[in-house]
Amino acid sequence: MTAFSQHDGDGRLRHLTTLDGLPRDQLREILDRAQTFVRSPGEIPARSRVLEGVTVANMFTEPSTRTRASFELAARRLGADSLNLDISLSSRVKGETVLDTIYTLQAMCVDVFVIRDAEPGVCQYVAEHVQSHVSVVSAGEAHLSHPTQGLLDALTILQFKGGFRDLVVAIVGDIRHSRVARSSFRALSTLEVGEIRIVAPEGLMPDADEFKGAVRHTHFEDGIAHADVVMMLRIQKERLTGTSIPDDRSYFDQWGLTRARLKLARPEVIVMHPGPMNRGVEIANDVADGPAAVIRAQVTNGVAVRMAVLETLIENRLKRGVAR
Amino acid sequence: MTAFSQHDGDGRLRHLTTLDGLPRDQLREILDRAQTFVRSPGEIPARSRVLEGVTVANMFTEPSTRTRASFELAARRLGADSLNLDISLSSRVKGETVLDTIYTLQAMCVDVFVIRDAEPGVCQYVAEHVQSHVSVVSAGEAHLSHPTQGLLDALTILQFKGGFRDLVVAIVGDIRHSRVARSSFRALSTLEVGEIRIVAPEGLMPDADEFKGAVRHTHFEDGIAHADVVMMLRIQKERLTGTSIPDDRSYFDQWGLTRARLKLARPEVIVMHPGPMNRGVEIANDVADGPAAVIRAQVTNGVAVRMAVLETLIENRLKRGVAR
Amino acid sequence: MTAFSQHDGDGRLRHLTTLDGLPRDQLREILDRAQTFVRSPGEIPARSRVLEGVTVANMFTEPSTRTRASFELAARRLGADSLNLDISLSSRVKGETVLDTIYTLQAMCVDVFVIRDAEPGVCQYVAEHVQSHVSVVSAGEAHLSHPTQGLLDALTILQFKGGFRDLVVAIVGDIRHSRVARSSFRALSTLEVGEIRIVAPEGLMPDADEFKGAVRHTHFEDGIAHADVVMMLRIQKERLTGTSIPDDRSYFDQWGLTRARLKLARPEVIVMHPGPMNRGVEIANDVADGPAAVIRAQVTNGVAVRMAVLETLIENRLKRGVAR
Repeated sequence: MTAFSQHDGDGRLRHLTTLDGLPRDQLREILDRAQTFVRSPGEIPARSRVLEGVTVANMFTEPSTRTRASFELAARRLGADSLNLDISLSSRVKGETVLDTIYTLQAMCVDVFVIRDAEPGVCQYVAEHVQSHVSVVSAGEAHLSHPTQGLLDALTILQFKGGFRDLVVAIVGDIRHSRVARSSFRALSTLEVGEIRIVAPEGLMPDADEFKGAVRHTHFEDGIAHADVVMMLRIQKERLTGTSIPDDRSYFDQWGLTRARLKLARPEVIVMHPGPMNRGVEIANDVADGPAAVIRAQVTNGVAVRMAVLETLIENRLKRGVAR
Repeated sequence: MTAFSQHDGDGRLRHLTTLDGLPRDQLREILDRAQTFVRSPGEIPARSRVLEGVTVANMFTEPSTRTRASFELAARRLGADSLNLDISLSSRVKGETVLDTIYTLQAMCVDVFVIRDAEPGVCQYVAEHVQSHVSVVSAGEAHLSHPTQGLLDALTILQFKGGFRDLVVAIVGDIRHSRVARSSFRALSTLEVGEIRIVAPEGLMPDADEFKGAVRHTHFEDGIAHADVVMMLRIQKERLTGTSIPDDRSYFDQWGLTRARLKLARPEVIVMHPGPMNRGVEIANDVADGPAAVIRAQVTNGVAVRMAVLETLIENRLKRGVAR
Repeated sequence: MTAFSQHDGDGRLRHLTTLDGLPRDQLREILDRAQTFVRSPGEIPARSRVLEGVTVANMFTEPSTRTRASFELAARRLGADSLNLDISLSSRVKGETVLDTIYTLQAMCVDVFVIRDAEPGVCQYVAEHVQSHVSVVSAGEAHLSHPTQGLLDALTILQFKGGFRDLVVAIVGDIRHSRVARSSFRALSTLEVGEIRIVAPEGLMPDADEFKGAVRHTHFEDGIAHADVVMMLRIQKERLTGTSIPDDRSYFDQWGLTRARLKLARPEVIVMHPGPMNRGVEIANDVADGPAAVIRAQVTNGVAVRMAVLETLIENRLKRGVAR
């Protein structure tokens, strides 16, 4: 049994279930392609017919109207048919029937499965079993991985900072339960960001064998000192088990990003947040709405990145000589 | 702080959250444009690509499959992308997060928000905060306003009566709790209908400072005598608080529109109803299905009016030189 | 009062609510047309713009993501607008309001209603009342009828067996409660399959006046002996009332299709299943995934058959000179 690979035999990307093992040049190619799709709100969105005839099935078993809308718009703006399916996969992974569901949709000529699921391993499990012309894209998997979020974070930093190597990036908050932190960290590591810090209270810090190479801070102020990028995370209350967390007010007092604290960072710091924000918990209103925040640009980049991923996967399919 | 205006600096319509303050000529322009979109069932619906690249987000927090389908078809038949979002706004208006939701969607290049909400003020609140290229259209707001319904009612009357000035229009039923009544009254007042009557039992009559200029009747038969148009409303049971209402049977006896009662109106009277009808409560079957009923034409006109509104708003955006 | 007919005055198909009374040549025409739409997964799906301007409303009151997705893709791949409506019909059939719902959608220029409902008679009831340009397609009605499933089963047999007359087809399982069995039996009878067997435990056998001409077997092994086609059904647990059914394990022991049992059939037997399968109940894993299984082809054919039905109905509408 060979290990799972997101790549086809020629090393081209076939699935996107994780950013682990995605080479730097492929990651950059996706960012460069995504950049061509970026339009400001108010401009006509980038549109093409390049995915006409392609069917993208969105299977979200954790509620996420925003991310689903982002994928739906990405697919449609490339001319694909986008199908929203209320089919749960995770509860069935143990049996075989998740595959019957997937095979059924595959037989209807679904070309790309976009899957969000709370159960680890579902995306890879599906990817291992679909036919050679079919691709799987993770839209968020348990606390483990959210690869398009990692890509959009990287694209946003690239836009505002022009590069990666000389930067200090601080990821702050509930790192332990955050798939965003894991995927953003992976993207930024691959892109060779100068210094990546993970900044969290002790109980929300990940295990020691994760986030290799990151500098750990349990003191907020130290963690963001002289940072070029501060990426705030919300507490994943739904994933906390047995961890005692202070109430919102106390959390804000200790871990909320305020204007005063932000002054510890570099003057031209940018503030990121994957959304949805808990204002008054991990971030103060005047920071969320302030000049350093690039949170809306992240959302715009999300659609662009998802367009780039979908187009890349279908292009690669053509290159490997699969029909179409 | 300036008062909210639906109009841009040049007086062109930018949002449609209410018919209050909509000038007569703008209202007529929408009706005239809508008329060009009217097709009979069985004909090919009017279609164009004029809104290609425009994204319309339908955010319905009160269930309404019909009105949502009408807006969805209107958007699609003009070539727009139509997105149905299960995002509730009203419970969050107090905090800031409704804006985060809107800003997120705006950052995905949503151009028009179509909002139905039970909470007064949501549409205007959103309209006050979106970027200059974004428009908000109310699809029904609390008991206050349902502007596209008012427009479709006016269009239906125009089609069947050829004008407004010489007409007697009777709006009958639960006026107090009806956003339809308010918006239809506003449209017909602006269009200078000769006489508008509001006809309701005492407990369902609106406060004295509303419906200025309408003639009030608490006696059904008097209220519809010699009317050219009788517009029946259903009781908004979900909005009744503390009002004692007779049961369905008693209501029908006193306030149901029967053929016998309809004879009190003009011979060429038309009967309207915004739907869904409660047959045997506010309207008898043989009236609902009889020759005077124009209820299905109202539905057809609903799609046409919504197409006209969407096209108008995007056209006006072009005129104000906003990108696109 | 004349009996309901799916056909228009010239004998052309106008609705598809049942396969009863559908002549052999019309059934074959649909299969032949469907065959032109069949593509393997990985090929570009057959697409056209022939239904551009046509609006198809999917009204599924029993959950069925698969069949709804199949109809949605069929409509979209022909260029139609496909609308998913969460409107329940069956609970309202007694009153008149089901018709108000239908008339409302008809007034929005819905051209085809695709209806799945647990209540017998809903499809026909709607079909009897819509305007002459509107068509109704059943997507499954109570235990009675699932016409597009019957068609896709016939198409699958035609593809793998090249014809019908010399075949022995065994339909196995909960025949009594199965709309699939009824529609497949009807299709195969009309297509003059040599021998059709219904194979079921006593309690799941239909009444004697149904399945006329079928050979009845209450012994599984006898029932599939020398069969060319074995069509397995799942137990419709939701439709069982008072029937005592053995547990899954016992059912599998007696009625599960295993490789050993399958050897009783012809060597080139094909195994069909309408899905979703209960592996380990009515079918063993190695049969479901084995070389005889054509279950995924059935799904692919489902989209093709639905495309053929939609195109046929709209073409016939043109032929009868209804507008469009």
